[in-house]
Amino acid sequence: MPWTSPLTSTGRSALVPDGPWSYIFDVVAVQAKGDPGRLREALPEALEPTEDIWFYIADIISFSPNAEELNYEAPGLLQYKEAAIFVRSLLNGKSYAYCPFMYVDSDVSLVRGLVAGFPKKIAHIEMTRFHDLFKPKKYGGLAYRAGYGLMKLLVEPAREVDKLPFDDFGTWLLRRYIKPLGIDELVEFAPDLEYSKIVEGRGSVEVGGGINDELHMFEPVEVLRGYLYSVRIGVRELRVLGKG
Amino acid sequence: MPWTSPLTSTGRSALVPDGPWSYIFDVVAVQAKGDPGRLREALPEALEPTEDIWFYIADIISFSPNAEELNYEAPGLLQYKEAAIFVRSLLNGKSYAYCPFMYVDSDVSLVRGLVAGFPKKIAHIEMTRFHDLFKPKKYGGLAYRAGYGLMKLLVEPAREVDKLPFDDFGTWLLRRYIKPLGIDELVEFAPDLEYSKIVEGRGSVEVGGGINDELHMFEPVEVLRGYLYSVRIGVRELRVLGKG
Amino acid sequence: MPWTSPLTSTGRSALVPDGPWSYIFDVVAVQAKGDPGRLREALPEALEPTEDIWFYIADIISFSPNAEELNYEAPGLLQYKEAAIFVRSLLNGKSYAYCPFMYVDSDVSLVRGLVAGFPKKIAHIEMTRFHDLFKPKKYGGLAYRAGYGLMKLLVEPAREVDKLPFDDFGTWLLRRYIKPLGIDELVEFAPDLEYSKIVEGRGSVEVGGGINDELHMFEPVEVLRGYLYSVRIGVRELRVLGKG
Amino acid sequence: MPWTSPLTSTGRSALVPDGPWSYIFDVVAVQAKGDPGRLREALPEALEPTEDIWFYIADIISFSPNAEELNYEAPGLLQYKEAAIFVRSLLNGKSYAYCPFMYVDSDVSLVRGLVAGFPKKIAHIEMTRFHDLFKPKKYGGLAYRAGYGLMKLLVEPAREVDKLPFDDFGTWLLRRYIKPLGIDELVEFAPDLEYSKIVEGRGSVEVGGGINDELHMFEPVEVLRGYLYSVRIGVRELRVLGKG
Repeated sequence: MPWTSPLTSTGRSALVPDGPWSYIFDVVAVQAKGDPGRLREALPEALEPTEDIWFYIADIISFSPNAEELNYEAPGLLQYKEAAIFVRSLLNGKSYAYCPFMYVDSDVSLVRGLVAGFPKKIAHIEMTRFHDLFKPKKYGGLAYRAGYGLMKLLVEPAREVDKLPFDDFGTWLLRRYIKPLGIDELVEFAPDLEYSKIVEGRGSVEVGGGINDELHMFEPVEVLRGYLYSVRIGVRELRVLGKG
Repeated sequence: MPWTSPLTSTGRSALVPDGPWSYIFDVVAVQAKGDPGRLREALPEALEPTEDIWFYIADIISFSPNAEELNYEAPGLLQYKEAAIFVRSLLNGKSYAYCPFMYVDSDVSLVRGLVAGFPKKIAHIEMTRFHDLFKPKKYGGLAYRAGYGLMKLLVEPAREVDKLPFDDFGTWLLRRYIKPLGIDELVEFAPDLEYSKIVEGRGSVEVGGGINDELHMFEPVEVLRGYLYSVRIGVRELRVLGKG
Repeated sequence: MPWTSPLTSTGRSALVPDGPWSYIFDVVAVQAKGDPGRLREALPEALEPTEDIWFYIADIISFSPNAEELNYEAPGLLQYKEAAIFVRSLLNGKSYAYCPFMYVDSDVSLVRGLVAGFPKKIAHIEMTRFHDLFKPKKYGGLAYRAGYGLMKLLVEPAREVDKLPFDDFGTWLLRRYIKPLGIDELVEFAPDLEYSKIVEGRGSVEVGGGINDELHMFEPVEVLRGYLYSVRIGVRELRVLGKG
Repeated sequence: MPWTSPLTSTGRSALVPDGPWSYIFDVVAVQAKGDPGRLREALPEALEPTEDIWFYIADIISFSPNAEELNYEAPGLLQYKEAAIFVRSLLNGKSYAYCPFMYVDSDVSLVRGLVAGFPKKIAHIEMTRFHDLFKPKKYGGLAYRAGYGLMKLLVEPAREVDKLPFDDFGTWLLRRYIKPLGIDELVEFAPDLEYSKIVEGRGSVEVGGGINDELHMFEPVEVLRGYLYSVRIGVRELRVLGKG
């Protein structure tokens, strides 16, 4: 059975086909330090923010063994771009990567994510494409929506590194909240990650926002570094930790 | 509290703000007869299809007293187009307007509808605009997605009528199905309807479809008439009738 | 013969079918005063800017007797939204409405305009829809592109008026500039205008811009008033006035 | 000076910045044989069609030394997808690759191409992305617009080859036609091509079309093979050959 409607006798018309879903990400990311007092405005009460923020823009291919043919019969359905913010936060003393805002440009990704707890909305998202024949001196990524910019990242690639500081934030933590269904809970999302090359360099970030996207709390106090990487992501575990 | 995430301390960043939601529809619609044997492929087992099908394309403004400023500060968020199919169906001997497929072009509408049980996906939707200064001899509406057409309606306006045959289908019936949340139930949606002028005339419909949108079961056996109308829709009641 | 390629033996596949083209506009507009010294940065040398600026966002239906069926067979092709800035400017002592920037959200409109000299680019454009069943206290319009806002207009309708101050700017003046074709000339566009109701009230405007859209020179020194109106526009005359 | 308006004192707001432009293409292509009698309907009278047709869908990065920063500051402006049909045709006995239809999903590409003579329109275009971490058994590409499919290509990669049969068609030939500017001429476009890996395999093509896109004349009589390749394209020469 697929994850969502529309339902037919074959199940082949669903917005979100059956999983398990895996993802190939090309990512432009920037690590920054924010003001924990302001970050609290975007976090559930049970969470204690640290100053660590991870911003990224990604160009993504998703796939499932239960919808293999869509990757060539209607490839746009399973491709998308994503812009996200994660704040390293403590829940009962343990460190997690909490995601307060995430944007995508695909209905399949929007709903597939919402049912897991990812706080997704649709935005226009652009990113310098990774391509062997194209070597720009900087890579950029940006997202915008409803008349205003959301975020803009720039990274100047300088050196290969072994490890992404984002992985020290912890497993991912989401607030799954759908009021008309009576759902409000904290969900832990544990990803399986296989990186290919990770490149580090100078990074910059501009945070925007507007009437329906309050992002001022993520304004960096200090920008640390930028990263470019590709990664294959699977879902190791998804479990409810408690009330939202 | 808003209906969905993203959640902040103000609640003003949610994809779907708090309701109650109302809707202004401009509609191009066609009534047709289909083959109940094939229509069954798109219906839950508990339902008995009749031959009556209602197709429409609509241009919509939505609004809520809890998000009034969005209608001018970011008007695109609350406007959208919609393409839908309803089949008159019997549940325990009572007649309902069952909706097996619905398409919109907005993330707010997509998720606001999914949590009620509307089987929405994003599509490209176009419709001849209603305008006092523009009087074409025909009105058209069409939807497409993923490389193929979904439906195309044409209506030649001829005469005003008092009543829409769609309202004889019954209240609306939805299958709210979200497998990862363990939800599968039949939901009755009772609309409040205030029509302005209803115009009737010759109608035609082309049904398309493709790999992720099986619409062949809605191929008309006979096309009855077309309709143009504007209507203000509110939600009188939403209640669960039973398992999906 | 159509205006552009693609060309086939029937001429029915052209991006821009044959004219003459007429237009139905629903408009949210704001009149403001700017700084002529800065406005000069967006004008050809032969023009002398005044301080008068007209901003508008419009929701448009276009039609031609040579493509009548497109308005119902593929209605999206001939509908679009438009965001524009006009500066009242003097050429050889005569007053014109010079258009330095114009945005649309349709390829047909983009190219149909470019060949006349309208400086069009594609943007995302939104506007509070005019509808008899929907009476918001404010109307808004906004345009954005490439990660940033371009302009945002708000109008609070207060009273009907007889006349639009924009019409005192003069006929429209364009710089038709296509370097690879060796074209650089000033073109006068004289519209035929038939207004339906014009409403006036308080207006506000926010001017944005970014790396590929330098709009800072239009920052208002004083905002005068806002307007809501519908108008049918035809093309009375298009003629070359001189070099660009 | 940029290629087009909008013009400002810096030239940095133009839709099409100054060239020379280069392009990185990832391509899904299919070679087929058509019916020369029908192909003639899409060709200028001076041309004699052969039976050879080349269909492709491409994912493209464009760049110019005069707009280098746009590739990271607003990367979406210079990226696009393209769907095209070329017919090998004879002009005065010499073989050319004549392009009767081309679709893109970007305003920059649309206008940059139109001024050279490429018969571009905007469409929705999708393609299986090339990525080192993703190895599907088939690659697909498709384009759609105005309610209907335009073309859909599928390629099953099987073996590397040295050479693309498309290059035997000849240099590219375009009909630059803009009636309001009095332009109708045949233009030769000679590309500089640097291929990276070319892969060949089984190919299939579905040709669609609709009211504003007559593509029936390209219906294949025989489908030969499919190709996947990446190529860097520059412009060696663009010259007018004669009247259109």
